[in-house]
Amino acid sequence: MFKKGWVCIGVWFLFGAMAVAAEVPVSDATQECLDCHAVFHPGIVADWQASRHAQVTPAQAMAVKGLAKKISSTDVPEGLGATAVGCAECHTLRAETHADTFEHNGAEVHVVVSPDDCATCHATERTEFAGNIMAHARKNFIDNALYQDLQRNIIGRPEVKADRLEFKPADDATRADACIYCHGTIVSVTGTEVRDTDAGELEFPVLSGWPNQGVGRVNPDGSAGACSACHTRHAFSLEMARKPYTCKECHVGPDVPAFKVYSASKHGNLFSAMGKAWNFKAVPWTVGQDFTAPTCAACHISLLTNTDGEVIARRTHTMTDRLAWRIFGLIYAHPQPKNPDTTVIRNRDGQPLPTDFTGKAADAFLISEKEMAVRRKTMQAVCLGCHDRSWVRGHFDKYQHVIAETNDAVRVATDLMGRIWKDGLAQGHEAGQSPFDEAIERQWMDTWLFHANTIRFASAMAGGGDYGAFADGRYHLSRKIADLDDWHRFRKGLGRTGK
Amino acid sequence: MFKKGWVCIGVWFLFGAMAVAAEVPVSDATQECLDCHAVFHPGIVADWQASRHAQVTPAQAMAVKGLAKKISSTDVPEGLGATAVGCAECHTLRAETHADTFEHNGAEVHVVVSPDDCATCHATERTEFAGNIMAHARKNFIDNALYQDLQRNIIGRPEVKADRLEFKPADDATRADACIYCHGTIVSVTGTEVRDTDAGELEFPVLSGWPNQGVGRVNPDGSAGACSACHTRHAFSLEMARKPYTCKECHVGPDVPAFKVYSASKHGNLFSAMGKAWNFKAVPWTVGQDFTAPTCAACHISLLTNTDGEVIARRTHTMTDRLAWRIFGLIYAHPQPKNPDTTVIRNRDGQPLPTDFTGKAADAFLISEKEMAVRRKTMQAVCLGCHDRSWVRGHFDKYQHVIAETNDAVRVATDLMGRIWKDGLAQGHEAGQSPFDEAIERQWMDTWLFHANTIRFASAMAGGGDYGAFADGRYHLSRKIADLDDWHRFRKGLGRTGK
Amino acid sequence: MFKKGWVCIGVWFLFGAMAVAAEVPVSDATQECLDCHAVFHPGIVADWQASRHAQVTPAQAMAVKGLAKKISSTDVPEGLGATAVGCAECHTLRAETHADTFEHNGAEVHVVVSPDDCATCHATERTEFAGNIMAHARKNFIDNALYQDLQRNIIGRPEVKADRLEFKPADDATRADACIYCHGTIVSVTGTEVRDTDAGELEFPVLSGWPNQGVGRVNPDGSAGACSACHTRHAFSLEMARKPYTCKECHVGPDVPAFKVYSASKHGNLFSAMGKAWNFKAVPWTVGQDFTAPTCAACHISLLTNTDGEVIARRTHTMTDRLAWRIFGLIYAHPQPKNPDTTVIRNRDGQPLPTDFTGKAADAFLISEKEMAVRRKTMQAVCLGCHDRSWVRGHFDKYQHVIAETNDAVRVATDLMGRIWKDGLAQGHEAGQSPFDEAIERQWMDTWLFHANTIRFASAMAGGGDYGAFADGRYHLSRKIADLDDWHRFRKGLGRTGK
Repeated sequence: MFKKGWVCIGVWFLFGAMAVAAEVPVSDATQECLDCHAVFHPGIVADWQASRHAQVTPAQAMAVKGLAKKISSTDVPEGLGATAVGCAECHTLRAETHADTFEHNGAEVHVVVSPDDCATCHATERTEFAGNIMAHARKNFIDNALYQDLQRNIIGRPEVKADRLEFKPADDATRADACIYCHGTIVSVTGTEVRDTDAGELEFPVLSGWPNQGVGRVNPDGSAGACSACHTRHAFSLEMARKPYTCKECHVGPDVPAFKVYSASKHGNLFSAMGKAWNFKAVPWTVGQDFTAPTCAACHISLLTNTDGEVIARRTHTMTDRLAWRIFGLIYAHPQPKNPDTTVIRNRDGQPLPTDFTGKAADAFLISEKEMAVRRKTMQAVCLGCHDRSWVRGHFDKYQHVIAETNDAVRVATDLMGRIWKDGLAQGHEAGQSPFDEAIERQWMDTWLFHANTIRFASAMAGGGDYGAFADGRYHLSRKIADLDDWHRFRKGLGRTGK
Repeated sequence: MFKKGWVCIGVWFLFGAMAVAAEVPVSDATQECLDCHAVFHPGIVADWQASRHAQVTPAQAMAVKGLAKKISSTDVPEGLGATAVGCAECHTLRAETHADTFEHNGAEVHVVVSPDDCATCHATERTEFAGNIMAHARKNFIDNALYQDLQRNIIGRPEVKADRLEFKPADDATRADACIYCHGTIVSVTGTEVRDTDAGELEFPVLSGWPNQGVGRVNPDGSAGACSACHTRHAFSLEMARKPYTCKECHVGPDVPAFKVYSASKHGNLFSAMGKAWNFKAVPWTVGQDFTAPTCAACHISLLTNTDGEVIARRTHTMTDRLAWRIFGLIYAHPQPKNPDTTVIRNRDGQPLPTDFTGKAADAFLISEKEMAVRRKTMQAVCLGCHDRSWVRGHFDKYQHVIAETNDAVRVATDLMGRIWKDGLAQGHEAGQSPFDEAIERQWMDTWLFHANTIRFASAMAGGGDYGAFADGRYHLSRKIADLDDWHRFRKGLGRTGK
Repeated sequence: MFKKGWVCIGVWFLFGAMAVAAEVPVSDATQECLDCHAVFHPGIVADWQASRHAQVTPAQAMAVKGLAKKISSTDVPEGLGATAVGCAECHTLRAETHADTFEHNGAEVHVVVSPDDCATCHATERTEFAGNIMAHARKNFIDNALYQDLQRNIIGRPEVKADRLEFKPADDATRADACIYCHGTIVSVTGTEVRDTDAGELEFPVLSGWPNQGVGRVNPDGSAGACSACHTRHAFSLEMARKPYTCKECHVGPDVPAFKVYSASKHGNLFSAMGKAWNFKAVPWTVGQDFTAPTCAACHISLLTNTDGEVIARRTHTMTDRLAWRIFGLIYAHPQPKNPDTTVIRNRDGQPLPTDFTGKAADAFLISEKEMAVRRKTMQAVCLGCHDRSWVRGHFDKYQHVIAETNDAVRVATDLMGRIWKDGLAQGHEAGQSPFDEAIERQWMDTWLFHANTIRFASAMAGGGDYGAFADGRYHLSRKIADLDDWHRFRKGLGRTGK
């Protein structure tokens, strides 16, 4: 059905020449893709051309010895080793497992490349990622009734009823545009269609939940996750993943203000002012030689060495390996869950939460103090690349204290909310109602969803007085507590009205 | 009256030499300006020296063939073709039309260079810009009684009266510092003064409404607009206008958070992390060769080609050419107005608004569905430079849905506000009062002025979960609706007090 | 006690070679430090290696003539002149004055290098900094009872009592993580400890209040201040201090949104888009040659010249030298204090505030109008590097007006708060209570602590309509005033409840 159009002319020369310069052969299958797509989609083809995938074959990558090795699989399927990792290499892999595979110009092509495809060459990273809580971002969110109630009241369709305002569940498009933009959609095939393209009439699968790059996306091959969330297509650039802008895509709001805090920290200042001279491509990544202040990746993921070539931190895509605490309050900060699938957690009250409403941790499901100590030490090894032990201990002592302090403040807020519920001024979960649907409940939600989190992030990254104080931090935390108290006292005096 | 002082010595050597190096002659008139101003104002002179205006004559620019041509006029007035576009070329143009023209060292100089001056060489761009809603930013705002009422209640002078708080109209200086900083002042000549300068006593015009670079500024020659709003003096750099920081000057607040959303999007991540290697000066601007992710300019303005040299999008300074919807809620998102002068619009209720309070569009004044489809296709041609049709359609379907969803939510908020007005708990326009002056009305204003807009911008740019959810997005939209409902039920139960 | 471990091997070659290349000898004492710390802390050693301290000796620096001279002391202690300014040069200076001095591998080393250490070579800067209000950031904050009451109610420990919510004073760790993160801790020695290090068992001092880089930090030698707050260790890079990211560390929140406003201003746009080509290392810093738009440092600190080499602004580390107004509202904007130690100030009501609650300035403690004019002119000399007098006057007239306008608005808010206090609906200072501890008082605090400040910063930097209008500016200022009025009228009608 495919007819080469005049638009394809000349592309071979342009990109063929570039490929030759890099002296890495492109497979015939990939060359056929490039013949047209270089003109149809010059942006992504250019990204790929500039990528390591276009410049090194898997065989060459596997031949690298020691810490500089970037590929973890020790062998790759026949036919893949000797050519660049091009269009066809990824988009025709494991064709039979992909529900979105379709016949395209003689090839069995699938649209959505999944972590299980990437695992062909990056087996260790794929396994690590599966152990990462982020790979479960969708399931952990969708299969938790409490979080779904939360979601309904935040992004749902408002309806004013005679006796109360109600939020109806959001539809798929709204959900895809909000929470699961980051948590991940389910990408599925709903049918096929024939489209009239520049290359003639062609048949394509029709996808729902697409496009999406959420980190917990469910792919048409059934796998969970999206490597492209951080390793942006089609350059999959190490440089880009190591810069904090990548993390910012999902971590900039008041709930997880990681980027904002980082960019106001001393480390962020160093990155912004001096980072242009750093080497973001080196593997391993050598402190003091390649960079002099950490980005998100340096602390949480990357393989770091000192200038003697000794490993300071081993590479991990299970980012919790270096994290003792989960500082995102649900509703309190708590030790990291043992299992990245957090849907198994039940607190003392039977709720699917890592803490109960009084702050007691669901210990059986969370890591032990001993394991916390191990992870803290793993992280501190990174700090020690530039700071002495006195500095590092001082920092962690303060951080540990801030976790306790903010948990205490959330407990006061929750106690006030409890009094409001008990006095019948609002209806919470004990009355069989949502604890998230009334106006006053938002004041309480703010305390643990925004302000306590912001304070903890600021402390964790030594991220500055502003985020600890006036920028969504303690100023707002204490204010919301005062608001809850004032509201309670005032409404209690009057009795509830409007019923 | 002008006496060359010792401060001028040596400048000729410095800048004369630079001009010679570029081998573009500088007119005698401009050289005379440079002789002093290079020392008096080295910053702007250096910007100009580095600019294309200093390095290419209009005649050379007009001789360029094809898409690389940067000048749209086909001939220029005698005497301008063969020299650099320097101080004198712009600041003495059309002297008789400028109320701010004054005699300066023998020349008839005007302070404020206007779009009609720029039109001398950039005729097409000037005409396009006049068709752009931004050129009418001042008039559309000032000549709309409803917007002026809104302005008064936001930036006005508060006065506490016995029976109510009132906001008196803001004075000129406050207005110039707030809304019309972006919308544009009227720059007018209020007199002349003699100043004792480093070059002796000189007479200058005294200007009011100055300085200002608002995009809808009214200039002393009567023209509307300021090219310098985006093409920053005195380099007028294409690179700068193409980077998102320029748009940020007016589009970063919660009403139009374009920059914030962009910088958290995948596109913004690519720009931030990898953009340093892109070519921001190329004309035409080739996707995949010069850049691999769009900035604001790429989607909305620039002339784009693919790697085969084919035009993907033609250059336009009528930015609505690529826009089907106006997502800035007034008070709902709506199809773009037909006429960039929006003061002609009347909704069903006779208000100067593109929608009425129930969300019904003022159809007669807005573009048709057919025209919307044309513009959507124009924009999608840009997307298709990197994405396939399935991706693009999925994105636009979701975006279209979000417009409907947010309009629905604003309708619920407006309905609640209407109940509050109807119950006499606040006084709105139907009671002959401002709908924008009472505390509870701000909760309603927030829904359409901040949160619905933020959600739409996030969706339009695939700008991330955070701005769609927690960062001024749906979390806050649903919260304000809950606040309105709670306030209404509570105050209705009690009756209004304090009267 | 020190035994060289295998980890030290090879460092000499690496860093010794680099030092030789720069042809600046490293002292034996510093070489001994490097032998181990280059591996233990490669990040900071690399920063130092890249620094001017590693590349120029004090003697060479003192030999520089004229404006390019970077060192202000005219002689340095014997033994320091001829070698690089390395680890030992700073960390063993004035050993007897530092309470944190300890014996380390035969040397008397102290952990915290203080402004009095830096004064050895930078005497003028140290003296200027002592006259800077920032050097007193801790004392001015801690020794002011009113500010301490404010602090307690913002970062204190909440406790719900039967009759009211109370905030107990925050403990040291919380304070170190919030306000005094920027204002500065007291760093003191609480004991010693033996640690098992890679280089064997070693004894170290135990520090409290550490780490901290607050600008008003009290050091173990008794001095106040931290040069490293802005001159980031261990590169102490001029480039970094001149970029706005450094100022952002403490000036990004809604109370002092300097960075946010700057980055949305025309100047910030120029820096972001074009600054990569500027020379941030040149001394003096020449407008038009080294840069074409100011950063924070250019306006407030740096030595600037025009292209003729004439001084536009002399270097100062007393940043108030160029500032007529203090626009941070306490609770109104006011002329700069005469004395950087602001604890001496008393307003008419005897409060330690530069203005009273009606806006009357504590004149005796603030600079005169004449002095304000001098400082305004000093600042305007910078503006005139790129702008003519008409522009500069227009800008300052508007700015002056905005100060008056925002002070007026704060006066209205304070008047409303006063009525609430007078009516017994809340308890303020006249009732012997804190004016900062009740929910409604936060609405009032917001007006002068966030919104009036934001508007003034936006005006001062010509920082854009958004921060003047919708982004924490006038929209929120007028809203909070409307909230105060609504709350007052409503609660007054009902009487106070919940007591």
